[in-house]
Amino acid sequence: MSDTTITATPGGYEVVIKREFNATKDKVFEAYNDPELFVQWIGPSALTTKIDSWDAVPGGKWRYVSKDSDGNEYGFHGYYHDIVENERIVQTFEFEGMPGRASLNAVKFEENNGKTMVTSVAVFENQEDRDGMLSSGMERGVNQGYDRLTALLEK
Amino acid sequence: MSDTTITATPGGYEVVIKREFNATKDKVFEAYNDPELFVQWIGPSALTTKIDSWDAVPGGKWRYVSKDSDGNEYGFHGYYHDIVENERIVQTFEFEGMPGRASLNAVKFEENNGKTMVTSVAVFENQEDRDGMLSSGMERGVNQGYDRLTALLEK
Repeated sequence: MSDTTITATPGGYEVVIKREFNATKDKVFEAYNDPELFVQWIGPSALTTKIDSWDAVPGGKWRYVSKDSDGNEYGFHGYYHDIVENERIVQTFEFEGMPGRASLNAVKFEENNGKTMVTSVAVFENQEDRDGMLSSGMERGVNQGYDRLTALLEK
Repeated sequence: MSDTTITATPGGYEVVIKREFNATKDKVFEAYNDPELFVQWIGPSALTTKIDSWDAVPGGKWRYVSKDSDGNEYGFHGYYHDIVENERIVQTFEFEGMPGRASLNAVKFEENNGKTMVTSVAVFENQEDRDGMLSSGMERGVNQGYDRLTALLEK
């Protein structure tokens, strides 16, 4: 499986995540933008995710809830600013366990020779929030999610 | 009048703006959160601003339109993530002349000896967007706006 690169410049406000998928960009974009596909790969593999809202237009709200095997629920929501088909998605992201602490997330899809590089940038209001997100197990969640997305795209 | 400090670390994704006002933080917060006060100070002094939406709760939308003396209109909008009375406001910000290019803005109010330090952090999805905002005359707009806010708070 392809490797994920996670970059967080010391003292910065951003996290940059890159991963290449062996699929065309319309397929990868669809897996991000279709809620029925999205819940099949997002997040740590121990969690199951259900969509609560998915209004994928600028100004629309999204919300989903992830549940672990003990029944604990983790809610996430945000608002779209930009959706360009097969090109990019820009939205905010808030973990409801830390209300009011949001990030702005921009995802870019770039195809080359039938493979697609996905670049996700998340920017935070301060370094503490960014570093807290990194130390919360984000890396494992991203890697497990992207491994599941790789498997989904091979189907 | 007090000085404004605008910091944009080279290679960073953020702009940090600081200014001290000679007023208690409830007064400064009110000037940010009450739309009738807000339009009296925001932005360059050559523009007049009208509120279109102002739903100041988490998830709410705000939108305003600024007009110059030639009648040109500039729209701005975004969504709130956090409002803590007299403490902080977190919202997104999009200039409608560049649709889909948003920033996340966090404003913090800290009082000391009857004066209030306002710290605004704006984070962008890349350095180009940040640098574009800086070179668009943002500094002049911020300074003129804050000079008007200073005058408003003295009334």
